[in-house]
Amino acid sequence: MPVKWMSALLLLQITCYFRSGSCGKVLVWPLEYSHWMNLKIILDELVQRGHEVTVLRPSSSVFLDPKKASGLKYETFPTTTNNDKVEKFFTEWVNRWIYDVPKDSCWRYYPSFNILFGQFSDFILNLCRKVVSNKQVMAKLKESKFDVVFSDAIGPCGELIAEVLHISFMYSLRHAAGYGLEKFSAGLSFPPSYVPIITSKLSGQMSFMERVENMICLFYFDFLFESFPAKDWDPFFSEILGRPTTMVDTMKKAEMWLIRSYWDLEFPRPTLPNIEFVGGLHCKPAKPLPEEMEEFAQSSGEHGVVVFSLGSMIRNTTKERANAIASALAQIPQKVFWRYEGIEPDTLGPNTRIFKWIPQNDLLGHPKTRVFVTHGGANGIYESIHHGVPMVGIPMFAEQYDNIAHMVAKGAAASVDFHTMTSSDLLNALKEVINNPSYKKNVMYLSTIHHDQPMKPLDRAVFWVEYVMRHKGAKHLKPLAFNLTWYQYYSLDVIGFLLACVAATIFLTIKCCLFVYRFFVKKQKNKKE
Amino acid sequence: MPVKWMSALLLLQITCYFRSGSCGKVLVWPLEYSHWMNLKIILDELVQRGHEVTVLRPSSSVFLDPKKASGLKYETFPTTTNNDKVEKFFTEWVNRWIYDVPKDSCWRYYPSFNILFGQFSDFILNLCRKVVSNKQVMAKLKESKFDVVFSDAIGPCGELIAEVLHISFMYSLRHAAGYGLEKFSAGLSFPPSYVPIITSKLSGQMSFMERVENMICLFYFDFLFESFPAKDWDPFFSEILGRPTTMVDTMKKAEMWLIRSYWDLEFPRPTLPNIEFVGGLHCKPAKPLPEEMEEFAQSSGEHGVVVFSLGSMIRNTTKERANAIASALAQIPQKVFWRYEGIEPDTLGPNTRIFKWIPQNDLLGHPKTRVFVTHGGANGIYESIHHGVPMVGIPMFAEQYDNIAHMVAKGAAASVDFHTMTSSDLLNALKEVINNPSYKKNVMYLSTIHHDQPMKPLDRAVFWVEYVMRHKGAKHLKPLAFNLTWYQYYSLDVIGFLLACVAATIFLTIKCCLFVYRFFVKKQKNKKE
Repeated sequence: MPVKWMSALLLLQITCYFRSGSCGKVLVWPLEYSHWMNLKIILDELVQRGHEVTVLRPSSSVFLDPKKASGLKYETFPTTTNNDKVEKFFTEWVNRWIYDVPKDSCWRYYPSFNILFGQFSDFILNLCRKVVSNKQVMAKLKESKFDVVFSDAIGPCGELIAEVLHISFMYSLRHAAGYGLEKFSAGLSFPPSYVPIITSKLSGQMSFMERVENMICLFYFDFLFESFPAKDWDPFFSEILGRPTTMVDTMKKAEMWLIRSYWDLEFPRPTLPNIEFVGGLHCKPAKPLPEEMEEFAQSSGEHGVVVFSLGSMIRNTTKERANAIASALAQIPQKVFWRYEGIEPDTLGPNTRIFKWIPQNDLLGHPKTRVFVTHGGANGIYESIHHGVPMVGIPMFAEQYDNIAHMVAKGAAASVDFHTMTSSDLLNALKEVINNPSYKKNVMYLSTIHHDQPMKPLDRAVFWVEYVMRHKGAKHLKPLAFNLTWYQYYSLDVIGFLLACVAATIFLTIKCCLFVYRFFVKKQKNKKE
Repeated sequence: MPVKWMSALLLLQITCYFRSGSCGKVLVWPLEYSHWMNLKIILDELVQRGHEVTVLRPSSSVFLDPKKASGLKYETFPTTTNNDKVEKFFTEWVNRWIYDVPKDSCWRYYPSFNILFGQFSDFILNLCRKVVSNKQVMAKLKESKFDVVFSDAIGPCGELIAEVLHISFMYSLRHAAGYGLEKFSAGLSFPPSYVPIITSKLSGQMSFMERVENMICLFYFDFLFESFPAKDWDPFFSEILGRPTTMVDTMKKAEMWLIRSYWDLEFPRPTLPNIEFVGGLHCKPAKPLPEEMEEFAQSSGEHGVVVFSLGSMIRNTTKERANAIASALAQIPQKVFWRYEGIEPDTLGPNTRIFKWIPQNDLLGHPKTRVFVTHGGANGIYESIHHGVPMVGIPMFAEQYDNIAHMVAKGAAASVDFHTMTSSDLLNALKEVINNPSYKKNVMYLSTIHHDQPMKPLDRAVFWVEYVMRHKGAKHLKPLAFNLTWYQYYSLDVIGFLLACVAATIFLTIKCCLFVYRFFVKKQKNKKE
């Protein structure tokens, strides 16, 4: 094809994806709860820009509701369960993570977590099998000729569907380095001397013993992560693709990784050109509150309000703990918006109002808001950073412990232990964050960093989805390390070879010296004789 | 200060740097030749946006000319030499690099290069001493209350002046990883298994023996780099700052590194949040050619034209080599624009016209241009990528060998050895690039990548200069590795400790087993007896 024509075609394609819209076709493999809430922001923006976005949806789902007004298309595949059972599975699963998994050290954490993650993995694998073995759905997907598969890396299947359909794929993921997926699938290695592994609750500056702990946890985590997919996922991927392969080898083919964090929440560390940090892409200006809520907020006077929410998965707690919380909240002069669905605690103060749902972003952006009491989910933390509201963290599961540890290290939050906290622990933390101005100052600094980026996170996220569609990938951004084995990557073969050369040289030199020495000694002896 | 006031002040400051202009004050420590040509693009843009940019200029200089119309301010400090002598120094220095430094292997390259770099270093040190010991100039700089010092990292002094004046500083630099400055001063470590060290001419995909070579060169380079500043620069920095310090420790305080490359020219590899890749920031659309040149270009008909330039430092060559070049150029059907200042070669063909100066960017952007014959300087390579013109590379010194090696590996260039090339070598390379459409296709792909970025390189460069001024630094982007020693960074102390623990455990276990064994053996012996 003549070059002129090629250029013209290329230009046409770029114009299409940039302006006229509706020419990009995105297939989405989503997860539930906060993962979906974050992913949906990108999908809605893609729809806004004229792209066709199709979400693969199991018939039993908690958050993926085709009835909710949205420009998204849904491709529903049948499952053998129902919405209530799925919700019950996740609620019980999270409760086990909160109450049954010890979080004091990685050698106690990881074995329990491994069992727990196995249950989640089985759930996803079951869904995945339902899709890829559904000939009708797969044929429809093939016919649709999608340009990219976009999925949450924590729940595999998107990359498998993409491989079957021969389409480029890319990921959204909460974590960055310190976690197996980035390390083994994205090729992002990191120095454990200043990058704490996830779940460690360590900050970027570690003492010697903390670095020892970080290293042990890293070895342990790597061992578990590497052995995890071998049992079910690797045979499943090999079966579906009809050739011996592994889950991680398939994931390595991802074109881009959109990580849901940034250097306001994380500590700076090495990254790669095909990893983009888009944390806080869901943040937006606050809208006015509903009338009743606005009145309640205004009634707080100069003391302002406290917003209390433990996220989309934790809506109630034990009576004892609810009473401890309510009692602490009753003792502060602020008015409190408490998102809670359990039985009303006996100790509830007149300053505290319970809501089944709160407009969290609008409340955090309200000028009266003084503190956000949060479980430390990334979405909530980002809304707090966005609006510059200091936090009291009550981490419960997943990477929430790390998120809160980072906020504490950056001076923007105080932390309370959910399992051991008394009423006065919570009260002291609240008083500390409300009365000590350094928390507000520090969170305002994070807010400034967050707002002052060359390009908004959502725009960057959408740019890279469109980019992968435009160019059928982003291969010039993928490190060439993928062609290396792990011992080649760490240059162990080269170091071994060089050490062998040095050893051989030393050996030969000594041998030569000995030979020469003996030769002369013999000569001298002969002379003497 | 109340939080409201703080926010208002912060907002005012941001508005100031973003919109009203003229409130940022930038002090520049520049280098000569292509380094200055690239840096000036950023400085001009800063002036355009209303900032005050002051360039520290030695009274003897080749490229820094205050008479040339520009919004830049110059602060001239006296030196004991003159413009001609400086030009002579650089010309001779480059000639030594081209002709006297063997480039076949790093163990032959580095020792010669080390001597050569020492001469450059002495030149810069002399200039630096002239500034910092000039009380009048330093007092004037102090009074000016600059917001940031912006300098080329390859020629130290900017960071020293910034330290004396207590101002944040940042760098522009051509290289990325594979070079001592990034590794030791920016903290950017890289895996030698897939990132070739600079001057190696290796690509990202290496054979085992190439990886061995890369590792040996890395050790050698690190050794030379670490020992280099100890002789002159470290004592000089300590003397001026009045405390024991080193050049590298001072450079580590840089807020941002603007690297003059991108993934079109480089191979993807790890990077850091405070390193921004802004390669090709100087590229711009082509302007119409002067009438005489346009006529010559049009006279080429369907064959098109070839542009030949060996950069701002190499304007002529030996008669023998000039004849070989002219003879090759005479044998192609294209018209040739040759930038050359030597005596006209006897073999000059009627299709070749010699120019003392050419509008390189406008020529490369001309629709008739088929090939760019280049020495492989980053500025020229980027103009070629920008306009999608395939190259014939004749690398001569500095990182030009790597630039051309990368372009060859990416299929956008053919390469010729300057020292051994015959007329037919050059002719074959030209014919290959002109007649084989893959070169055009590959360079068009690089051009697409180059143009398709979330934000233009120049805008990003200016954003980060303004950012450092706004926030008096960018500390949240700097890796925390700087607080670690090298053995801590590589976790050698931790690994040593863990190995010692393992050894102690094994030792104790064996001792216990032996003890128990002996105890029972003794018991049995006693029984038998």
